[in-house]
Amino acid sequence: MSESRRSFLKGTTKKAIAVTFAASTGPFIITARAAEPERKLDFALVGLGSLATNQIAPGLQKTKYCRLAGLVSGTPEKRKKWAAQYNVPEKNIYTYETFDQIKDNPDIDVVYVVLPNAMHGEYTIRAAKAGKHVLCEKPMEISAQKCQEMVDACKKANRLLAIGYRCQFVPYHLEMMRISREKQFGPLKLIEASFGFKIGDPSQWRLKQALAGGGALMDVGIYALQGSRYTSGEEPIEVTAFETKTDPVKFKEVDESIQWHLKFPNGVMANCSTTYNSNGLNRLFAGFDTGWAQLDPAYSYDGLQGKTSKGPMNFPQVDHFATEMDDFAQCIMQNKKSKVSGEEGVRDLKILGAIYESIRNGSKTIKLA
Amino acid sequence: MSESRRSFLKGTTKKAIAVTFAASTGPFIITARAAEPERKLDFALVGLGSLATNQIAPGLQKTKYCRLAGLVSGTPEKRKKWAAQYNVPEKNIYTYETFDQIKDNPDIDVVYVVLPNAMHGEYTIRAAKAGKHVLCEKPMEISAQKCQEMVDACKKANRLLAIGYRCQFVPYHLEMMRISREKQFGPLKLIEASFGFKIGDPSQWRLKQALAGGGALMDVGIYALQGSRYTSGEEPIEVTAFETKTDPVKFKEVDESIQWHLKFPNGVMANCSTTYNSNGLNRLFAGFDTGWAQLDPAYSYDGLQGKTSKGPMNFPQVDHFATEMDDFAQCIMQNKKSKVSGEEGVRDLKILGAIYESIRNGSKTIKLA
Repeated sequence: MSESRRSFLKGTTKKAIAVTFAASTGPFIITARAAEPERKLDFALVGLGSLATNQIAPGLQKTKYCRLAGLVSGTPEKRKKWAAQYNVPEKNIYTYETFDQIKDNPDIDVVYVVLPNAMHGEYTIRAAKAGKHVLCEKPMEISAQKCQEMVDACKKANRLLAIGYRCQFVPYHLEMMRISREKQFGPLKLIEASFGFKIGDPSQWRLKQALAGGGALMDVGIYALQGSRYTSGEEPIEVTAFETKTDPVKFKEVDESIQWHLKFPNGVMANCSTTYNSNGLNRLFAGFDTGWAQLDPAYSYDGLQGKTSKGPMNFPQVDHFATEMDDFAQCIMQNKKSKVSGEEGVRDLKILGAIYESIRNGSKTIKLA
Repeated sequence: MSESRRSFLKGTTKKAIAVTFAASTGPFIITARAAEPERKLDFALVGLGSLATNQIAPGLQKTKYCRLAGLVSGTPEKRKKWAAQYNVPEKNIYTYETFDQIKDNPDIDVVYVVLPNAMHGEYTIRAAKAGKHVLCEKPMEISAQKCQEMVDACKKANRLLAIGYRCQFVPYHLEMMRISREKQFGPLKLIEASFGFKIGDPSQWRLKQALAGGGALMDVGIYALQGSRYTSGEEPIEVTAFETKTDPVKFKEVDESIQWHLKFPNGVMANCSTTYNSNGLNRLFAGFDTGWAQLDPAYSYDGLQGKTSKGPMNFPQVDHFATEMDDFAQCIMQNKKSKVSGEEGVRDLKILGAIYESIRNGSKTIKLA
């Protein structure tokens, strides 16, 4: 990458390509306002597991402003396979041991952290210290404190940090936000949000407390929490939570099923639910004064469906990861904070922490700061 | 009605027409096993409001074993209009003052109480004392204690009592029970159930605490509670509830929106929700080990839809009230306790009472006996 492009990406050039999400009056439109040739940011993926393999790498191929340029993995076979498949030069490939040398590699702009939850903090902070912008998968980390350390590290390094809250870039979810913000059906009255699935392989890291920091709630319940927050447009002030384990062997270390209840300052309540032990929960419902809106399935990678009291929603299916990465690239090019910034992750982890606190205290209602 | 028929209805003749609900392997089938001529029970409706007018009287016309034979109303115009419309003889028409004389009328077998909630007890007990079987609309009354008095009065009078839990006779709901009981998708893991609507006329009795005994929860939340109970097939052991009022003027006397959480002995949890201030909530979801089932709309008078992880449910739309009344007529003819007996109403009112108790105590978890 040329030095002039690096300066540009650091925000010295403000005139840039812009992406406008115009979801307010109809189908989601992406408009490239500038006529400049496309600029692409070079991404290095840290962690080449199933999400990176099946979603993020294919998503990168569909981006306008991003390029898969680097890899970080502890597995020689993966490094070799990926290098060949995506034509990644040897000099952009790292192990976890050599990762810090990425600071000397001007060909990597962004590090995308796709590791187990409890490793997000370490690699985000190491990437920031290496001078890279960081996109980090959700959940941001396993505690709000760790999340705050990540925010601080990126701030100190003057690098941007975004969390992989892909739904916030998806037309169906943008429509839920629009309906709520613009009061198309009047004021919001209540929310129901739930996401769960039947988890397979009992040996996977998602079922290990040390790596995952929690079970269904951390992994997929967070979508229902996010959905409640961005649909309401407010921050919850109270949470009360309930847990059950119908399979205490498989879910020895992490939560199997949690239901929780949020109260927002405007009096809106949200009933939320998550599970690792049953399929079918995949919904975001908002009831308003004069109508309602619902997504179901709401949080899948593809095939979302939505409807309102007026009829079906009809939006294109976008690649969630491509859209999320292109947005972050745009933020970097414009030196603009992402709407899914690290602070957004800190807020979620505070609430997730309060949910676990409520459960530890016999479903006591926890006041949120 | 002839004396022999009365004896028969009192259970002296056990061989009777039977209705079999065979929902286990496909569409809902009603089979009249006996070749005897149809016998019809004569119903008197107490309270000629909108439910009686729009649902119950038309439903009666579709029954096999029931007949609209009597009326009780305080409004002369209504008595006159109904008498003409349904060809009801003058001798079977009562006011609330003359109602007790129904004991001397052998042409009325069943009294169907369709009054405001807080009048259910009085008229059920008066009907039982007059020697009539009683079908009483939901909610059974406004307290479990009052419900128990109704059960006791009917027992003392040796009359049958059933509550208007129409959904328990509807193929879609029977299918939810069947899937759960037969473990088609393995053990039940979790439930979500919610029913609400935007209530109109602010002067109606449903918004008066003295007549309604509560708001959305008593009127429509009870469907979500019922749905959770008959889908799980167990009795909840804990309830925690949350209330909000976004319109404290309209909902000065009764609850506007309540969300509550149930825990069942087998570890299954249910998240439930009700409101009088938004449309769209009308759902019963059950997540199992290897699949799921959902009704939405679940509780409307007509047009129910259901699906499972295997595909859409496909059942005929039945008249809920006709099916409910025919079942009660069959119970009377066979001197058999209804599956929606008074005891079922007592159980619900105990739980509804615990929901209000939880709310009064800052969403404290209430243990259920």
